[in-house]
Amino acid sequence: MQNTMARRSTTEDDITADVLRRIDATPDPRLRAIMRALVGHLHSFVKDVQLTEAEWFAAIEFLTETGHTCTDRRQEFILLSDTLGVSMVVDLINHRKPGGATESTVFGPFHREGAPEMPAGGNIAPRDGRGTPAIVSGRVLDPAGRPIAGALLDVWQADSSGRYDSQYADSDDLHLRGRFHTDAAGRYLVRTIRPVHYTIPDDGPVGRMLRATGRHAWRPAHIHFVVSADGYEPVTTHIFDDSDPYLDSDTVFAVKESLVCSFVRHDAKDAAAAAFAIEPPFDTVEFDFVLTPRG
Amino acid sequence: MQNTMARRSTTEDDITADVLRRIDATPDPRLRAIMRALVGHLHSFVKDVQLTEAEWFAAIEFLTETGHTCTDRRQEFILLSDTLGVSMVVDLINHRKPGGATESTVFGPFHREGAPEMPAGGNIAPRDGRGTPAIVSGRVLDPAGRPIAGALLDVWQADSSGRYDSQYADSDDLHLRGRFHTDAAGRYLVRTIRPVHYTIPDDGPVGRMLRATGRHAWRPAHIHFVVSADGYEPVTTHIFDDSDPYLDSDTVFAVKESLVCSFVRHDAKDAAAAAFAIEPPFDTVEFDFVLTPRG
Repeated sequence: MQNTMARRSTTEDDITADVLRRIDATPDPRLRAIMRALVGHLHSFVKDVQLTEAEWFAAIEFLTETGHTCTDRRQEFILLSDTLGVSMVVDLINHRKPGGATESTVFGPFHREGAPEMPAGGNIAPRDGRGTPAIVSGRVLDPAGRPIAGALLDVWQADSSGRYDSQYADSDDLHLRGRFHTDAAGRYLVRTIRPVHYTIPDDGPVGRMLRATGRHAWRPAHIHFVVSADGYEPVTTHIFDDSDPYLDSDTVFAVKESLVCSFVRHDAKDAAAAAFAIEPPFDTVEFDFVLTPRG
Repeated sequence: MQNTMARRSTTEDDITADVLRRIDATPDPRLRAIMRALVGHLHSFVKDVQLTEAEWFAAIEFLTETGHTCTDRRQEFILLSDTLGVSMVVDLINHRKPGGATESTVFGPFHREGAPEMPAGGNIAPRDGRGTPAIVSGRVLDPAGRPIAGALLDVWQADSSGRYDSQYADSDDLHLRGRFHTDAAGRYLVRTIRPVHYTIPDDGPVGRMLRATGRHAWRPAHIHFVVSADGYEPVTTHIFDDSDPYLDSDTVFAVKESLVCSFVRHDAKDAAAAAFAIEPPFDTVEFDFVLTPRG
């Protein structure tokens, strides 16, 4: 067989076109478009920085270690996506919300299925003896401000040590997680502890990347919510504590101003203490979620 | 604390600049440049295709599975890099060889350390009872055509079933691997079997990607070499069989015309049979490697 094919003498100028030709047969047009963009950007990245073979191999090792760090309890690739701002780009292009609707933010790597259903006022932190008790309450509303009854709030957060339940290797228990429904007036009520800022898990490859790039690993204090209701678009979001020193340098770039709330300290047996049947000191914070009807 | 920071209202238009600002503190200037390009291309990719959250999560799952598929015996991220043409881009920009020097190609995921040192004519395929015996010979030369004595050739290939030794889960044995040195005339001589085309391991995520993009998983028949000598740049390369039907569609884009060789069949007790002390039928192929002096 004689050589008659130009592609046997591929150069750095035409290799990308060769690869794109090879994936032209992708049956699904959406996948074809994604693969074309992926190959184009990957090749451009390598050419732009003139990646060396040693750097390429370091990247292979980094990705392999990131994969090996992923377990049922830890999702290092989501952490990587979060810390490179990729997750927030995905969030921003997918949730161009009409004004007034609650803004979304990153899902993060710590959600777990199967959080217990709880009545209004249920305590998701019964075994955290150190945190400041906190009452989180508010309403779930439609864009006209009408209450949505029976909306579901899936809530999760880190404990007073800044760790999620899944970060304790010695326990499978669910803790600081719960699912709540709104009442007929659209109200919800969660008892928990005031969240604290914490570092993302930084003993793996993502932590090494942060240190190598001169970055800290802190996230400002927040509580996670996924709020959903029949006929409405669900929203994945956080509420943030407005007094947190890391609000302007969240290592996963997830802060949006509309999600920043004030926690109020109660040191005396005031009306709130009576209403919530709770001993001071405790904190309260209110936040109303606004869902948009399904398109 | 009041909101005075623009970054708390990040949009898809300024998130990339935010992330780039955050990595500006990277102490190592080379790492800073690589990270800047990486973040820029990653964000542009997501925006160019308007990646959905479901697609983002599919990517997280794909990368996680790719990592979990990597073991001591299998390197799925190298396969992914190879099949997306990234490895060849890295090869092409790092080995702009002067004319006449042997061209490089992909390293691939199947090299193993510790191949046995063998004398000239040593058989690397003693336990392959099915392949056509083959004699691979030639010289290692400098650019002026002068022999390089004592050059090291690290040789590996797949067996007659198209599998490398490491793909047999029931064995740790090294097979079809050897290290040879050139003699005073720069000559080397390897006894092996004629290589066959084979599919890359396609029972994992990379195989799924190939099928989803309408591609086959075949590599044309080849033998791997890393050739090195004191004072010269080592070369990582293959030689390819010019009769192979997959020469123009190698799934890892590694074929270069200068590496394509003719295997010659010997069916009778000819001079070659006598010279190599081998019973027909067998094949011979000759290839001279040319190394460039270290710069």
